[in-house]
Amino acid sequence: MPRPVVEAVKAYFDLEAAWSGHGAAEREAERLGGVYGSVARLIGAAPDEIALTESATRAWQMAFYALARSLRPGDRILIGRQEYGASLVALRQVAAATGAVCEVLPATPDGPIDVAALGGMLDGRVRLIAATAIPSNGGLVNPVAEIGALARAHAIPFLLDACQMVGQRPVDVAALGCDLLAATGRKFLRGPRGTGFLYVRRAWIDQLQPAMLDHFGAPLDGHGYRLRDDARRFETYEHDHAARLGLGVAAEYALGLGLDQIAARIGVLADSLRQGIGALPGARVHDLGPDPAGLVTFTLAGQDSAAVRAALGRAGIAAGLSLHAAAPLDAEARALPPLVRLSPHVYNSEDEIGRALDVLARINRGELRP
Amino acid sequence: MPRPVVEAVKAYFDLEAAWSGHGAAEREAERLGGVYGSVARLIGAAPDEIALTESATRAWQMAFYALARSLRPGDRILIGRQEYGASLVALRQVAAATGAVCEVLPATPDGPIDVAALGGMLDGRVRLIAATAIPSNGGLVNPVAEIGALARAHAIPFLLDACQMVGQRPVDVAALGCDLLAATGRKFLRGPRGTGFLYVRRAWIDQLQPAMLDHFGAPLDGHGYRLRDDARRFETYEHDHAARLGLGVAAEYALGLGLDQIAARIGVLADSLRQGIGALPGARVHDLGPDPAGLVTFTLAGQDSAAVRAALGRAGIAAGLSLHAAAPLDAEARALPPLVRLSPHVYNSEDEIGRALDVLARINRGELRP
Repeated sequence: MPRPVVEAVKAYFDLEAAWSGHGAAEREAERLGGVYGSVARLIGAAPDEIALTESATRAWQMAFYALARSLRPGDRILIGRQEYGASLVALRQVAAATGAVCEVLPATPDGPIDVAALGGMLDGRVRLIAATAIPSNGGLVNPVAEIGALARAHAIPFLLDACQMVGQRPVDVAALGCDLLAATGRKFLRGPRGTGFLYVRRAWIDQLQPAMLDHFGAPLDGHGYRLRDDARRFETYEHDHAARLGLGVAAEYALGLGLDQIAARIGVLADSLRQGIGALPGARVHDLGPDPAGLVTFTLAGQDSAAVRAALGRAGIAAGLSLHAAAPLDAEARALPPLVRLSPHVYNSEDEIGRALDVLARINRGELRP
Repeated sequence: MPRPVVEAVKAYFDLEAAWSGHGAAEREAERLGGVYGSVARLIGAAPDEIALTESATRAWQMAFYALARSLRPGDRILIGRQEYGASLVALRQVAAATGAVCEVLPATPDGPIDVAALGGMLDGRVRLIAATAIPSNGGLVNPVAEIGALARAHAIPFLLDACQMVGQRPVDVAALGCDLLAATGRKFLRGPRGTGFLYVRRAWIDQLQPAMLDHFGAPLDGHGYRLRDDARRFETYEHDHAARLGLGVAAEYALGLGLDQIAARIGVLADSLRQGIGALPGARVHDLGPDPAGLVTFTLAGQDSAAVRAALGRAGIAAGLSLHAAAPLDAEARALPPLVRLSPHVYNSEDEIGRALDVLARINRGELRP
């Protein structure tokens, strides 16, 4: 998290400690309201198409389970091979409950979703296309705009998991053609944990009733309730104000740096990391696709990835571990072991990349106990 | 929030900024895991009967929508008149979707749910009793244990909204007889916003499938998934670690003070506040029931409650405003206007109560512009 994000959250927290939740919210109402505009600008949406949520998982669930309300036996859901484990479980629950069928889209030999194959699979029973822009198990970038164009042409809702893309690369929902987009605040966007958001294209908002409601998303109205006419029908009244404020600061921070600049810088650092890792004897980079993003995943021959990650950590390098749940169907299709993941960001220096490669070389030579 | 809560959250936040979400979680795994035990101790439950959520609303929803999965046309849901607006909307949505009927329990003349009337309403079609321990629109305390005993005798699940009770008074789920209990971290418990929890009695856990699932609550298993066998099946993998840690510290803090001591102290301060307000010309205290809790609600004759609250705020006194949504059916039954709410806590002094009464007297005399 950038310093302004950390400071904004802490300052708001102090305000709540002094003035209670409601008192703090009133004092910062303008900035809190502005978060919608910041997030909207980040993805080329309108503020009323944004619902703020407590995680990307919840954002994706709120979209998916709303769509699921109208599914009938035999309806088809097409998903990418890279869908996140959380989404797969939800898909299986809904398929079992509704009789809808979930079909996995083929991938091209170099990894991304096969758009030509998708085109051949579309018919009147397809009720949803769900894809992930950049999976969390590697640098693969899916051809989202092409999928979006097909979805739009067939008037099929397209739900995009953009967790690893938002904050890393420019995102424009019009260009991508997605109808619903779920993202987190805490990854490349560098916002606080406990934040996420859902974009709902204007035309879809009033067609979707959330699967769970409260009096914020749907105020009481006589003996019934009236759903809000903006995307905030997917929210609850009670939420974490401090974290939301941090999300807004993170979005403005990324916009200030410029998403093109961020993407270019990450690209340079990730390329350099990939080249260096690829040159280590026995190392294998697992990222697929022609233009991999800033998630660099690899294994070292004969070394356990969790141990490699721990050794990196002891050397002061924060690495991730990509496990089966990150993209279970893809992991099975490619027989992937756990992968070490390094995700350079705009604040990293060439020197740091060099140091990470040096540490990895020593781990690889057995000089650092992994 | 007590200082240890604020400091714990901030320190964890710094750890995340330095080591990323995963790195921080690993370093504080033990304390994070301990939050379940702290919350469980607070209500006399076992740690595996606790699900941590992002709010009480979400906790209540996760319980209610899971129960709703098995509702059939004509099934009956009995609710108290004091149910929160958020819950009413959910009840109406589910009633419309399932054909179940939602019936409001009568209240005795002095306010609480009429337990004798409840006893007369129970039959084989009652599938749920939902009640609120202490509503957020006043000091009323419902006869929870009596309701729980009836629910238990008829094997009907009993869902308790204990938002205003947890942290204010001792809570023992065995004594209360509730099968599901939803609460927030941020009210009398003095934890951070963005926290709540759901208690699910052991015997109910494996009878309830959450209405939304991810790979944490239900790990993938072959071509299906396998629901966790503890209450954490109601959680998602992604959550706000810093806030949870703060919730655990808040629970330990309250346990350290002692819930009996907290309740006694709040009782003394609230009584003193009620007596003082009742003595103001034209003031009216709206709290019902024989043993009102620490939510002191009132109106001043001829004065707008929002303006009174604002005037209190300018004098450095954090008051709340209880609106229709706090308990819509009760507000309608009693034709309640917006109420000013003062909630003394254990940290308040008699001097502060005196000062609040002095400020209120001046507002009441028109000496402070409201």
